[in-house]
Amino acid sequence: MRAAVIHGSGDVRIDNVPDPKIRDATDVIVRVLCSAICGGDLPRYLSMPTEQAGGRMGHEFIGTVEDVGTDVVRLKPGDLVISPSTWCDNTCEFCAEGLHTSCSRGGVWGYGDADGAQGEAFRVPFADGTLIKLPVPVDSALLPSLLTLADVFSTGHHCALVAGVTRDTSVTVIGDGAVGLCAVLEAKRLGAQKIILMGRHRDRTDLGRTFGADWVIPERGVAGVTRVRDIVVSGTDTVLECVGTKRALATAIGVARAGGTVSRVGMPQYSEGPIGEDLWFRNIALVGGVAPARAYIEELMPDILDGTVDPGRVFDSTITLDEVPAGYSEMASRQVLKAFVRL
Amino acid sequence: MRAAVIHGSGDVRIDNVPDPKIRDATDVIVRVLCSAICGGDLPRYLSMPTEQAGGRMGHEFIGTVEDVGTDVVRLKPGDLVISPSTWCDNTCEFCAEGLHTSCSRGGVWGYGDADGAQGEAFRVPFADGTLIKLPVPVDSALLPSLLTLADVFSTGHHCALVAGVTRDTSVTVIGDGAVGLCAVLEAKRLGAQKIILMGRHRDRTDLGRTFGADWVIPERGVAGVTRVRDIVVSGTDTVLECVGTKRALATAIGVARAGGTVSRVGMPQYSEGPIGEDLWFRNIALVGGVAPARAYIEELMPDILDGTVDPGRVFDSTITLDEVPAGYSEMASRQVLKAFVRL
Repeated sequence: MRAAVIHGSGDVRIDNVPDPKIRDATDVIVRVLCSAICGGDLPRYLSMPTEQAGGRMGHEFIGTVEDVGTDVVRLKPGDLVISPSTWCDNTCEFCAEGLHTSCSRGGVWGYGDADGAQGEAFRVPFADGTLIKLPVPVDSALLPSLLTLADVFSTGHHCALVAGVTRDTSVTVIGDGAVGLCAVLEAKRLGAQKIILMGRHRDRTDLGRTFGADWVIPERGVAGVTRVRDIVVSGTDTVLECVGTKRALATAIGVARAGGTVSRVGMPQYSEGPIGEDLWFRNIALVGGVAPARAYIEELMPDILDGTVDPGRVFDSTITLDEVPAGYSEMASRQVLKAFVRL
Repeated sequence: MRAAVIHGSGDVRIDNVPDPKIRDATDVIVRVLCSAICGGDLPRYLSMPTEQAGGRMGHEFIGTVEDVGTDVVRLKPGDLVISPSTWCDNTCEFCAEGLHTSCSRGGVWGYGDADGAQGEAFRVPFADGTLIKLPVPVDSALLPSLLTLADVFSTGHHCALVAGVTRDTSVTVIGDGAVGLCAVLEAKRLGAQKIILMGRHRDRTDLGRTFGADWVIPERGVAGVTRVRDIVVSGTDTVLECVGTKRALATAIGVARAGGTVSRVGMPQYSEGPIGEDLWFRNIALVGGVAPARAYIEELMPDILDGTVDPGRVFDSTITLDEVPAGYSEMASRQVLKAFVRL
């Protein structure tokens, strides 16, 4: 079969790879219907560590079950399913607490010998724990919005949820990528009355306004902090940091109110961050992390099914598997917000 | 009058300084009865920034009101009072939320032109907001325990409280200084069933056991992390970091359970800390900061008055004002845990 493979920095190719087969009795093989390119993979794409050469790409997919292992009980061939961006047994102590990303038997798609979502088929370990059935036909127009449950919409939700966003909290969202926009959507859904979006791409921030942003601030760094504090003098109660750079984190801390919370979901592109005396003296909490999408998919799905939210609007490009290498390039150059891959 | 003044690194002297006088109508002048040397001041003592030369030292005191400004309504001459380690108006938006350390009109004793607690008398701004009356006689044997409310006991409480310690959480306390020991005491008081104390000074960790520690681990760094995980394999739900060094924070993150919380109250002796991919992937929250003692003193006092807790046991040395310079030296060399200064 064909799948996206990374060969070096900026070098993703569609290669012929072995067809996936049932390996363990809890496995399922999924025929991929649609996938996506994630902004969170751009750092890996742009500066691929040597040891990852040959690794598969992509961690968001919807597909149909093709083959099931002998221990699989919840799934059968033909089921339409979605996977979170990690696999999990859904039974360990961490899964039981809703932290499926720390599953003691889990892992992340596209690393080690795991399959990647940008491929024709896929072996899913612990399929009963990992996969969730979708109650729509395979040609549903809702597939793009449902696909965001695999990562970006669930991640925006995680960011707002662990930040403690409520009706009473003011919110700054940093970053106008797909996750930032989904964080706006979720902050709004959680009732936030004041949502400030920091982002520089007009088409994206326009969508952010549609999703619920009350103000858009294009300035970055100190100028951006000043602009936020023109609106909310003491800073906002919660800050949703959806970028992952040290600069974005510094801005997040700068706009946070004393006693407030900075929630970060973008994978840190730094090993050390600015958490010295300022954060400490102002008692600002730093929370968040990789989103356990598995914990949220069933909860968030109804609002997509009934049209309350349409996070699929973050996709501004639809491509084929063969166009995935070009898709990475277009996303890295910010020509495309997020690419939907239809197989 | 005489007061402790810092002249350079390792150089604290008892100088003659001008008597404090009412400056603003909300001021009170307090005659100091007892003070303390704080481990949190040791970094300042050991490596004093040049711009702080001539600054007063000490931020913990109990004393009697000597003179009151015309706008002071809650206090009168003769009242026995305690101050938190910062002053505050107790009316601003932050004070109203219990974050008195971020009071919009507040400040920290011993910085700028503020008086320090190691002196014979003291000008207290916003005295109605700052000071709390003590319902004991001036010669009460409870003064040492009550004095810990000014900082170390309140700080230990803050650390355990914002970490979310409950009956159901396992706890690692890092540091066997006065704050670490008070954090043990507060974790126990909040009901924690498993308390691990990481500290290397036997006399201090013995007191930690008395305060509630179930295990004591003298190893540091990776060896210490391994020892904690021998006891609680996944790491502890909460970690109370009561040191303030980057090494202690790294240990705290190392012993924290995925989805858990690291609460830090020691002033960070670093500008950047290790909050990269590991903290993020494991969804560990970093909370805490300077303790708003003003918010806790009235709540914590009853347990001291009725003998339920005796945090004053952290004082293992009683000295005079003249002995304060030697007291700093003894604390810096770890000969003394915490010095009580009787004026």
